[in-house]
Amino acid sequence: MLMVQETTTTTGPTRSRTPATRAFPPDSVGIVQREYAHFNETLHLKSGATLRPFTLAYETYGRLNMDRSNAILICHALSGDAHVAGYHTGAPGEKPGWWDEAVGPGKMFDTNRFFVICSNVIGGCQGSTGPLSLAPDLKPYGLRFPMITVADMVQAQRYLIDYLGIRKLFAVAGGSMGGMQAIQWAVDFPERVGAVLFLASTTRSSAQQIAFNETGRQAIYADPNWNNGDYYGGPTPANGLAVARMVAHITYMSEHSLEHKFGRSLQAHRELPYTFREPEFAVESYLAHQGEQFVRRFDANSYLYITKAIDYYDLGADYGSLRAALGRTQANFLVMSFSSDWLYTAEQAQELVGTLEDLGREVEYHHVDAPFGHDSFLVEVDLMTQVVGGYLNRLYSKQYAGVR
Amino acid sequence: MLMVQETTTTTGPTRSRTPATRAFPPDSVGIVQREYAHFNETLHLKSGATLRPFTLAYETYGRLNMDRSNAILICHALSGDAHVAGYHTGAPGEKPGWWDEAVGPGKMFDTNRFFVICSNVIGGCQGSTGPLSLAPDLKPYGLRFPMITVADMVQAQRYLIDYLGIRKLFAVAGGSMGGMQAIQWAVDFPERVGAVLFLASTTRSSAQQIAFNETGRQAIYADPNWNNGDYYGGPTPANGLAVARMVAHITYMSEHSLEHKFGRSLQAHRELPYTFREPEFAVESYLAHQGEQFVRRFDANSYLYITKAIDYYDLGADYGSLRAALGRTQANFLVMSFSSDWLYTAEQAQELVGTLEDLGREVEYHHVDAPFGHDSFLVEVDLMTQVVGGYLNRLYSKQYAGVR
Repeated sequence: MLMVQETTTTTGPTRSRTPATRAFPPDSVGIVQREYAHFNETLHLKSGATLRPFTLAYETYGRLNMDRSNAILICHALSGDAHVAGYHTGAPGEKPGWWDEAVGPGKMFDTNRFFVICSNVIGGCQGSTGPLSLAPDLKPYGLRFPMITVADMVQAQRYLIDYLGIRKLFAVAGGSMGGMQAIQWAVDFPERVGAVLFLASTTRSSAQQIAFNETGRQAIYADPNWNNGDYYGGPTPANGLAVARMVAHITYMSEHSLEHKFGRSLQAHRELPYTFREPEFAVESYLAHQGEQFVRRFDANSYLYITKAIDYYDLGADYGSLRAALGRTQANFLVMSFSSDWLYTAEQAQELVGTLEDLGREVEYHHVDAPFGHDSFLVEVDLMTQVVGGYLNRLYSKQYAGVR
Repeated sequence: MLMVQETTTTTGPTRSRTPATRAFPPDSVGIVQREYAHFNETLHLKSGATLRPFTLAYETYGRLNMDRSNAILICHALSGDAHVAGYHTGAPGEKPGWWDEAVGPGKMFDTNRFFVICSNVIGGCQGSTGPLSLAPDLKPYGLRFPMITVADMVQAQRYLIDYLGIRKLFAVAGGSMGGMQAIQWAVDFPERVGAVLFLASTTRSSAQQIAFNETGRQAIYADPNWNNGDYYGGPTPANGLAVARMVAHITYMSEHSLEHKFGRSLQAHRELPYTFREPEFAVESYLAHQGEQFVRRFDANSYLYITKAIDYYDLGADYGSLRAALGRTQANFLVMSFSSDWLYTAEQAQELVGTLEDLGREVEYHHVDAPFGHDSFLVEVDLMTQVVGGYLNRLYSKQYAGVR
């Protein structure tokens, strides 16, 4: 295992130093803070390029047990970050992390039992090294940032797991691009992963998925503020990024959920105003809102890099075939697909399940009838708690049977 | 019937005045030319606005019979125009009209039997009055052009049909937005439509369809060259329009057809180049090509107006309910849906068919197992010839039984 030079300036998990300004429900992880791990190692990327130094921003929830065997790594999706659960300030109106329903005492990732870790991916824009970070010449990387892949994200996370002193992860879990990372972990580092939770994801980006991502990138390229990625300190390509987010957002929902939520409802008038000046239909206003919210928190260059990583993703290609890749794994697998998810379809999940079964791996597959499209894995909280929580608790009981 | 002042400067169907520079197959309509009908009438639009004067560009194929009873109106889709079949110049390399496989001697719209008409919709950019046309102040309309609806397109076509001296159309046919117009014809002018051919279409734009169109419009608005629609004579919002076309184009194909056609094939290299500088995957290059081709022939403001017309489309709303609207019709119906069309789904077609059957209308429904998505109606030529051609020939035999 590699030695990692620890240069973080944060002082570890000192929680609740400031008095909470609001009361949290008993199953909330409460106030949390973003930590940083700085690595002076060289990351050898799949493209042939290297990255050094690099930083990973991360958060943890729950407590690592004595033998460091209860850690679950959650990998985030395209637009996610390390802030999975809890609150940074506790200020009134602050929204919790992106999967707060999933992480906490008694929740599907039960922090009474598990030590949960999430790090912002490299290439990201929420504290990990990415295109908006300063390069060694102290100017932002911009497009000088090297291309990254899902395997590179995982390799960087491996440094963090080493740094935390964890030899084997109880599980690696993720939805969408998070699922790609989770299974990549089990293929690249077989002896370090106990279980993979692969949710609404794919082992291989399809032509249609690439096409949607490319359209989003073209919207960013078309924004004059993008300026070939060299816009830090000036106006950002917010319009292009908003359009990219709108395209993507449609693919995260199902036709049914859009119809059920909005149908042909008008936004602000009883009769169609027949105008370009304002959103006429409620669904237009909703999309505009999604775009506006996104550009406030996300960097356009990161969007380019991360969508590229998703497009490059083909787990089998790295090892000759999907079967050969999966043949390396030693983990148990929980695979979930959702009936209305047309971005990462059940067909794709089933190909994975079939191959794992052929290889004699322990795999539990749930195809869920859910109306919310790709976002179902985030929306169907009760069901996910039952399936994911139940699966983890069974594994936990098995592993720690008679221990306590 | 309204009197129409005929001010067209073309001299009617004088075909093949210039010697053809290439030989056409025997089932081609050969050299054709775009005609114009100018109307000094006032078009009362659904928004409450009016349009006067207005011009329709149109083409015809085959010959109108003595009692003017063999005319079929083909209505084009979003990006189509009046040039359905044949060639304008016959120059080497010239591509024929957009549905050349469908119109000609012995083809599905058999010009040996039928007189086929197609006009560019109002709001369009291929000769009919639209946002790039000169307003009465001799400046281009731009966004001063009034909003239009599918019913307005049909009302304008009605002037053309009057002008051609046709009382009753043998059939009105169209795919996609063309299908919307076809059925609108049968609802608004019941006694003037013998049959409706409703192909890969819907009676009501859904929230998802509106969302995709709105994303395309936002891409155009985001292009600084768009300049609130005031760009004629200057650089055009080509980048925004190209992105809009890319989004839309993905919805015209199926996941399967994109996968089958491109999969993860690389465009120009044996190994991934890991770059933003050029398309890496073949599907990216294909999308770029679709965008580039489109901006050469289409006006961005027309794209805005026509997508709005599609979004406004809700056949039932105009008459209180779909059933009430369809209750007005006197036509026979051919309805076709395609298994892989996820833009205008079989479910939507089946709602129409069920309502027509409840009302006791003569309706023939074909749900076709076809892999090419929404574009199947353009791609599946043999099958369409069999179904559409067969249907028209049966109607023809019935109508003209014993006549000749």
